Amino acid sequence: MTTYQARRRAIAEGLAERRLDAMLVALGPNLRYLSGFTGSNGWLLVSAERSILFTDPRYLIQARQESAGEGCEVRIAKGPILMAVVSAIARRRLRLIGYEPARLTCDVYEALLKKLPAHTSLRAVEDWIESQRTIKSADEIELIRRSVVTNSRAFEQAATRLRPGMKESDLAAEIEYRMRRLGAEKPSFETIVASGLRTALPHAQPTSAEIRPGLLLVDMGSQQDGYCSDMTRMLFLGKPGRRVTSAYRAVLEAQLAAIDAVRPGARTADVDRAARRVLQQHGLDKAFVHSTGHGLGLEIHEPPRIGRRDKSKLAAGMTITIEPGVYLEDFGGIRIEDTVVVTDRGCEILTPTPKELRVV
Amino acid sequence: MTTYQARRRAIAEGLAERRLDAMLVALGPNLRYLSGFTGSNGWLLVSAERSILFTDPRYLIQARQESAGEGCEVRIAKGPILMAVVSAIARRRLRLIGYEPARLTCDVYEALLKKLPAHTSLRAVEDWIESQRTIKSADEIELIRRSVVTNSRAFEQAATRLRPGMKESDLAAEIEYRMRRLGAEKPSFETIVASGLRTALPHAQPTSAEIRPGLLLVDMGSQQDGYCSDMTRMLFLGKPGRRVTSAYRAVLEAQLAAIDAVRPGARTADVDRAARRVLQQHGLDKAFVHSTGHGLGLEIHEPPRIGRRDKSKLAAGMTITIEPGVYLEDFGGIRIEDTVVVTDRGCEILTPTPKELRVV
Repeated sequence: MTTYQARRRAIAEGLAERRLDAMLVALGPNLRYLSGFTGSNGWLLVSAERSILFTDPRYLIQARQESAGEGCEVRIAKGPILMAVVSAIARRRLRLIGYEPARLTCDVYEALLKKLPAHTSLRAVEDWIESQRTIKSADEIELIRRSVVTNSRAFEQAATRLRPGMKESDLAAEIEYRMRRLGAEKPSFETIVASGLRTALPHAQPTSAEIRPGLLLVDMGSQQDGYCSDMTRMLFLGKPGRRVTSAYRAVLEAQLAAIDAVRPGARTADVDRAARRVLQQHGLDKAFVHSTGHGLGLEIHEPPRIGRRDKSKLAAGMTITIEPGVYLEDFGGIRIEDTVVVTDRGCEILTPTPKELRVV
Repeated sequence: MTTYQARRRAIAEGLAERRLDAMLVALGPNLRYLSGFTGSNGWLLVSAERSILFTDPRYLIQARQESAGEGCEVRIAKGPILMAVVSAIARRRLRLIGYEPARLTCDVYEALLKKLPAHTSLRAVEDWIESQRTIKSADEIELIRRSVVTNSRAFEQAATRLRPGMKESDLAAEIEYRMRRLGAEKPSFETIVASGLRTALPHAQPTSAEIRPGLLLVDMGSQQDGYCSDMTRMLFLGKPGRRVTSAYRAVLEAQLAAIDAVRPGARTADVDRAARRVLQQHGLDKAFVHSTGHGLGLEIHEPPRIGRRDKSKLAAGMTITIEPGVYLEDFGGIRIEDTVVVTDRGCEILTPTPKELRVV
């Protein structure tokens, strides 16, 4: 049984207790996770006996390559793909179909509902596949490790090209170019390059502003073979003053404390608290305006969230980010972020990039 | 009155005939179109008297810069942003709210419905803002022209670096790097670089395959200041044979015929037919497996579609692609694509890149 077959089997076996005849999986990471298909148009219908991947003629060859060998029947819709899904449901007299409310827009849901036979109904099923995806297999961890290493190498290569006066957007372009040359499909999110006071914006988009002496924040991730990485590093152009070095040390200490709290069974809120407590000792907790981290895998943001009010527990095989930061309007922002994997005893930091403030 | 105010005014004035008290616009191109806001979390509530942009504290400064000067009230939600929207609706006793079924996932719709006061209801409003967006203003056309020129310059720069044996994915990386260096935020879609027989896949993702003598298809677009461009060009490594040159000539003739049919009042189906008729004369119409083009602007695919069964009419100010192609499994694929704008009398081709088969 292949990986994809095993994943679908887990869904197929969970149908009965949910009283579902089938689960209809929309295009996106869940569909990829269960079938291997990476095209831009598709549906997957999983029932106890079989799985059918629906797509359109553009993806005939690709669907066969990616999914047919994985035990999926591939059905190429000649007309609208949703009609092919409805026909398959009708022909097999499936009565109760699970759907993913967070992956379906209202218009598609309505169209589906209207076309289904009268005796068939839909039931929202939330976070089922997502929760299966939180625990990564050894193969997935290796893919994430590769993505992390690509990302770190791209950072190193781009950092050697950094010059004062360079535009933020040009450094971002350099970073994304390097990750692609190293094997990534694309960035896993829009690369953040923020210089000077703009580091105080946690979600700064790179601008055409020139990188000047002072703080420089780079938050970047690669997506390679579908799997994401995520890292933030700080650089300083010139000689950092005492306020910078002491704030940097505080954030680093907070990050290490949070990493130290990562182990199977730990509450995510406790990991968050570990970082927050250190920053409080430095009088910086009010400047830490976001959560400590998030899961990542086929998506850049996945469960679990590592935040103050989160109630989940960590388990071996989860891959998460640890990324405390402080943001002060008159000073700038400092964030340090690694990708880590929860192991049987604690965790392993996947990100190989050194964490000293990099002085340029 | 600023551009954004004028656009919202058009919506505000259309509320009464739709019997709506307000229109709730979800994050995405419609929200950007009406408010200027480019952050990654937001809602816009447009009523007859005022417009409110909701976002979270990360975007406080950005929302003020982008939207407050444009006559939007900016409201920063401290808790969940949807609750802030619901409070504003409740406080002002709005009863019937329009929403966008194609922009809202089912879970968000359900959450909204559950939290709204009992006397407030939601009504699906389809394609209202999208249809307003199809006619571009002179300013928007200039932004699209800039995006098109960036895209063509990036193509030229990358093409000079093309060498046989280069990986498809490395040429794609080079292209995207060049567009960013020239001022684009990002590619408007995943750059297609396909060599040899892979050109026969209309939606080929670049692979690590080496570019070998033969056909090479490059389909690329930039997004600059939010606006998209889209172009496909064919190259040939080595000396093209007769079958290639004659198929190329047929596709070019079809593309020119379709462009010739573009004028205000023309039916999109007739533009499509103009391309298809030429290919038929060359015995290639069965190999033309997609539609002739699509609108583009803040999104890479917008109305109108230029396809066989489309019923819309062109109007001055529409920006569209014209991109016939032929795909033969044993031979490869050829597609030629420009971005054009419908003018008062006909159209203008925005894409400046020459259309001869580029022999390398």
